[in-house]
Amino acid sequence: MKSAVEELEAKGRAAKAVSRRMAYLSTEVKNNTLHNIAHDLLVKRDEILAANQIDYKEAEASGMNAAMLDRLMLSSSRLESISQDMLAVAALPDPVGEVFDMRTLPNGLQVGKKRVPLGVIAAIYESRPNVTIDISSLCLKAGNAIILRGGREAIHSNTALARVVQDASARAGVPDGAVQFIESTDRTLVNHLLKMGGIIDLLIPRGGAELIKFVSENAAMPVVAGGVGVCHTYVDRSADVEKAVAIAFNAKVQRPTVCNALDTLLVHADIAGRYLPLVAAEWTKAGVEMHCDKRALSVLESEPSLKLIPAIEEDWGKEFLSLVAAVKVVDSLDEALEHIERYGSGHSEAIITEEYQSAMRFLDEVDAACVYVNASTRFTDGGQFGLGAEVGISTQKFHARGPLGLKELTTYKWIIFGSGQVRP
Amino acid sequence: MKSAVEELEAKGRAAKAVSRRMAYLSTEVKNNTLHNIAHDLLVKRDEILAANQIDYKEAEASGMNAAMLDRLMLSSSRLESISQDMLAVAALPDPVGEVFDMRTLPNGLQVGKKRVPLGVIAAIYESRPNVTIDISSLCLKAGNAIILRGGREAIHSNTALARVVQDASARAGVPDGAVQFIESTDRTLVNHLLKMGGIIDLLIPRGGAELIKFVSENAAMPVVAGGVGVCHTYVDRSADVEKAVAIAFNAKVQRPTVCNALDTLLVHADIAGRYLPLVAAEWTKAGVEMHCDKRALSVLESEPSLKLIPAIEEDWGKEFLSLVAAVKVVDSLDEALEHIERYGSGHSEAIITEEYQSAMRFLDEVDAACVYVNASTRFTDGGQFGLGAEVGISTQKFHARGPLGLKELTTYKWIIFGSGQVRP
Repeated sequence: MKSAVEELEAKGRAAKAVSRRMAYLSTEVKNNTLHNIAHDLLVKRDEILAANQIDYKEAEASGMNAAMLDRLMLSSSRLESISQDMLAVAALPDPVGEVFDMRTLPNGLQVGKKRVPLGVIAAIYESRPNVTIDISSLCLKAGNAIILRGGREAIHSNTALARVVQDASARAGVPDGAVQFIESTDRTLVNHLLKMGGIIDLLIPRGGAELIKFVSENAAMPVVAGGVGVCHTYVDRSADVEKAVAIAFNAKVQRPTVCNALDTLLVHADIAGRYLPLVAAEWTKAGVEMHCDKRALSVLESEPSLKLIPAIEEDWGKEFLSLVAAVKVVDSLDEALEHIERYGSGHSEAIITEEYQSAMRFLDEVDAACVYVNASTRFTDGGQFGLGAEVGISTQKFHARGPLGLKELTTYKWIIFGSGQVRP
Repeated sequence: MKSAVEELEAKGRAAKAVSRRMAYLSTEVKNNTLHNIAHDLLVKRDEILAANQIDYKEAEASGMNAAMLDRLMLSSSRLESISQDMLAVAALPDPVGEVFDMRTLPNGLQVGKKRVPLGVIAAIYESRPNVTIDISSLCLKAGNAIILRGGREAIHSNTALARVVQDASARAGVPDGAVQFIESTDRTLVNHLLKMGGIIDLLIPRGGAELIKFVSENAAMPVVAGGVGVCHTYVDRSADVEKAVAIAFNAKVQRPTVCNALDTLLVHADIAGRYLPLVAAEWTKAGVEMHCDKRALSVLESEPSLKLIPAIEEDWGKEFLSLVAAVKVVDSLDEALEHIERYGSGHSEAIITEEYQSAMRFLDEVDAACVYVNASTRFTDGGQFGLGAEVGISTQKFHARGPLGLKELTTYKWIIFGSGQVRP
C-alpha cells in the first residue's frame, strides 16, 4: 500500500503532467465543466448534504463553536448559491490565449506575449467546504491543474464536492488528473506539500491568520497571501462632513469582520470638533466602541452615551475584525501619511477630502494595494472592482496586488514568429 | 562600534524608509542621476581604475583563472561603454506612473491601476564590478531603493563605483539613503540579508549557478532567478533545410557560453538524412562536438571528419555552455514536444518548420519563457526584444517571464476616485 506521502507525490506528478494539456483546453470545455458543476451540485444535493451532516455532527460533538459550525454547514440554499456562482464564472471571459504587446522588430521578427495558465495551483484551506468549489472553478477556468487539501473537519463534505468537480470535469472532456484531491487528513502532508516547489506553481492558503502565516513562511513556491487588512480612513481638514460620516460608518459597520473594514480613523485637528461628534453618534447607534487618543477623547468625552476607551499603543496597526475602531487626531496630511506608513498593512487606505492636492498626494504617497479618495474601503473586492470573481486579496507587491481575478491565475510566454532570423 | 549585522539592518531600514519618497520622484531627477553617473564614470576614471587594479592584483596573486580575471577587470574602454549604457537607460521611457485599466463603474467609482516601484531591491553579485552600475541604474530608473552586496574579490572596485552612484544620486536630488552599499565582505551577512523579507521586496542574484541556487532556496523574499537555459531546437520534417542549418549554427556557435545558446538539436527522422550531414559539416568547421543518439550516429558516422560521441542519458537536459551539442532523431512532433517537456528548463525553445499546424502546435504546447518559430533562440534578450535594457532572464512563471526590463522592476496599486460612495 502506498504511504500518504507517496500518494501525494503521485498526485502532484499527475497534475503536473496534465497541466501542459490544460494550457490549450478550449473555452467551451472549461465552460461546460462549470455548467456541469452547477448542475451536479443540485442533482447530487442529498448526497452532498448527507456528507456534510457527518462532518457537522462530528464537529458539534467535538465542541466546535457556533461561528465555525456555521462556516462548515452546507444547506440547499447554500448549494444553490454556489451553483449560481459557477454560472457566473462560466460567463466571464476566458483569460487564456490573449496575445498582447505584439510588435514587429526591424529584423522582421514578430515578438509578443501570450497569456497562459500558471500550471499547477494548490489550495490549502480550512472549514469552509465551499472553497473546494470556488477555487476549483476559478483555477480550471484559468486553465490550471489543481491540488486540493481541505481541512480535517470538513473531510466528508470536501470529498463529496471534489468528486462533483472531478465528475463534471471528466464529462466535459477535461483530461484526467486535472483535479487532485488529497483524501488523507494527516497533518504532516501539509509540510510535504509546501516543499513541492518543482510541481506547484502557486499555493493559495485560505483560512485563519495562523494557517496563512505558516504557509507563507514555509512554502518553497509562490504564495498568494493576503487576508490581513489594517485599514485607515483619513478625514482631511477640508472633508465634506456628511460624506465623511457616511463613508466611515459604512467602512466600519457594513461588515466589520472582513479585511477591508475600517480599523483606524484619522481626523485632521481643524475638523475634529465638528466631525468626531457626528461620526461617534452614528457609530454608537451601531454599537461601535472607540479607542481614542487623548485629543479625540477631549473632543468626545462630554458625550456620556459613547463607548470610549483610551487608546493604547497596540490599538494602532491592529486589525479589529469587530465593531471597534481606533481614533486619532492628527495635525496634518503628513502626519496621517506617516501614521499609515508606520501602521498600515498595505491593504486599503482612504482619504476624505475636498482639496485636490491632498487627494493627489494621498494617492501618490500611500503604498497600499488599494488607495481611495472619498469612498469606503469596503469596495476592495474582485466583484466590486468588476473582476467577476476573486481568488483572494493580495497584500504582496509581486505578481499581483489587491483583488485577484482569473487573469492573476495566469502568466504569459513570449511567442516569436520568425522567417529564418539569426542573431548578428 | 556597530556590528556588521546591525549595520546591514540599519541600511535596510534606511532604504525602506526612503522608498516611499522614491515612488514619486520625477523622471527628470532620475534621468539626471543617470546622466551624472555617465559623466562621473569618465571624470573619476583614474580613481575607479586604481581601485580596480588593487582588486585585480590581489585576485591575480591568489591564482584566479583568466576568465574570472577578465570579468573582474575594468578599463577605460569598459568604463566608456558603461557610461554609454547609462545614457541609453536615461533615454528609456519611465515605467512609473502609467495609469491603466481605468474604468468607471456603474456606481460612479473610477477604478484603475497605477504603476509604482516595487520598493527596495537588493542585488547579490559576484566578480563583475559593472553589475554595481547596471543594477543601480535600472533599479533607480524604476524608482526603487537599492541594497548592493558585491563579491569580496571586487570590493575596492565596487566601493568606488557605489560611491559614484551615491554621489550622482545626491547631486540630482535623489533622497539620501536610496543607494545602500554593503562594505563588509563577511559572508554570513548574505544569510542575514536573505531573511530581511519585511524590508526587501525583490532580490536579484547575479553570478554562478551555485550562488543563484543558494539564494533561490534560502531567500525569504521573491527572487528573480534565471540564468539556466537548456534550449532545444527542433527541426521538423518540413523544415527549410537551409534556414534550419543557419539557425542551428547561429544558436550553437554565435555565443556558446550563454543561457540562450542551443543545447540539444532534435531532428525529425524524415529529414535527418538530408539535414544532419549539412549542419554537422558547418558545426564541425566551428569546432562543435556532437553527442549523438544511435540514430543520429548512424546518419553521421560515415563522415570521419566529424567530432561525434555517443550520447549518454546525462546529455539530455544538460546546459553545455560550450561548443557541445546533444543531437537526437525523433519520429514526430509529439516526440519532440515530450522530450522538451521532460528535459527543457523553460527558457527558450524553437521549431524550424514550414508546416503551419506544426508551428502553431509548438507555440501552444511548449511551456517555456520564449517559444520560437523559425528563428534562433539567441534572440532571447531584453535588448533584442526591444526592452532597451535587461535585469536578467526569468525562467519562473510568477510576476514576469523571460527578459526582464524596467517595467518588471515595478508593481501597481489600485487607485479609486470616489465622490462619497459607500458599499450597499
